[in-house]
Amino acid sequence: MTAEEDGRAARKRRQIMEAARPVFLRNGYVGTSMDEVAALASVSKQTVYKHFTDKEQLFTSLILDTTDQVEGLARMVTTALDDSTDLEKDLGELARRFLDSIMRPDLLRLRRLVIAEADRFPDLGRTWYQQGFERSLDTLSLAFERLAGRGLLRLDDPRLAAEHFVGLLLWIPVNKVMFWGAGEHYAEADLDRLAAAGVEAFLRAYGTTGDGG
Amino acid sequence: MTAEEDGRAARKRRQIMEAARPVFLRNGYVGTSMDEVAALASVSKQTVYKHFTDKEQLFTSLILDTTDQVEGLARMVTTALDDSTDLEKDLGELARRFLDSIMRPDLLRLRRLVIAEADRFPDLGRTWYQQGFERSLDTLSLAFERLAGRGLLRLDDPRLAAEHFVGLLLWIPVNKVMFWGAGEHYAEADLDRLAAAGVEAFLRAYGTTGDGG
Repeated sequence: MTAEEDGRAARKRRQIMEAARPVFLRNGYVGTSMDEVAALASVSKQTVYKHFTDKEQLFTSLILDTTDQVEGLARMVTTALDDSTDLEKDLGELARRFLDSIMRPDLLRLRRLVIAEADRFPDLGRTWYQQGFERSLDTLSLAFERLAGRGLLRLDDPRLAAEHFVGLLLWIPVNKVMFWGAGEHYAEADLDRLAAAGVEAFLRAYGTTGDGG
Repeated sequence: MTAEEDGRAARKRRQIMEAARPVFLRNGYVGTSMDEVAALASVSKQTVYKHFTDKEQLFTSLILDTTDQVEGLARMVTTALDDSTDLEKDLGELARRFLDSIMRPDLLRLRRLVIAEADRFPDLGRTWYQQGFERSLDTLSLAFERLAGRGLLRLDDPRLAAEHFVGLLLWIPVNKVMFWGAGEHYAEADLDRLAAAGVEAFLRAYGTTGDGG
């Protein structure tokens, strides 16, 4: 394949994925047909199957596309911690951006769909968990380990600290939207408050200045 | 109605709910028919409708039955905190029993089903959230407020402390089983470790003895 053909194939693949995303979100995994995806992407069904061997592979590609975005953001925002001289401020910004990215309505609907199908299609759930959830935790725990090395955090187990950080931050808002459905949105001010409160508690538990705050 | 008739009606209602639970868990909300529930409960369809006006009411009753159990447990285990003289030990036991009750496979499958349907049937999700999730948090925050009154916790906002306690404890294991499907189980030793680590971090953030641990 020439570079130009490569580029064309990548664009076609992207075009099919963008068409497929709203179909899956609207109809669920079982209710989505490759025919509808092909029609919405304005390509033939053969073209869809040339890029994705079956529906599971197409949906898995959508999951990986999303988890890559989340992990990319996690890497970007945690890299900023390496130069931090004001940990409460910088962790607060990380927490706020993390909340923003996790609370995007489309991401939450995809998350709900993956959970809904996890019993019937465990590979989909595991892909999400390993490539999104765990990879972001790994990225965060490496950043926390470096902060501990600089004497800015006090921890024995960086992975546990990362799990606690994320749990403090996300348990309440993610569950609320999971149970309340797509109609429920957090106001920006509420997300600000959640981020600040989570970081404050985290620094009391894992910080090194004064009483941790 | 006589007391005997009351008792008979309650037993019949319970019999229908027990028959319905595995049908919903196996077939999902949309895939469950009142015919199948009636057959499995060995009652007529009319009897089912005498006790539950429609499928939504039957499913809502199952949700409320489950959330009542969780809240009952939350009340029981938090009451024990009022006499606590060893907060780390008693919070550890509370955490461990809470994890046990939340991580029951049937509860997790019902939870997944409610999340799966939250967009289409927001009332179901809100019932779960308000009657289960929020009620348990209320119970916990009242207990934390009493502990703060005795000088055993240091907090401005008991509800926030309760949210943080539960987030430290549940974010990781609940998500793991949500994404990994019903085949995934935690070993007892893993739940012990999660409970102890969550309580330790919580007491560093909200405790009053030494550095909080």
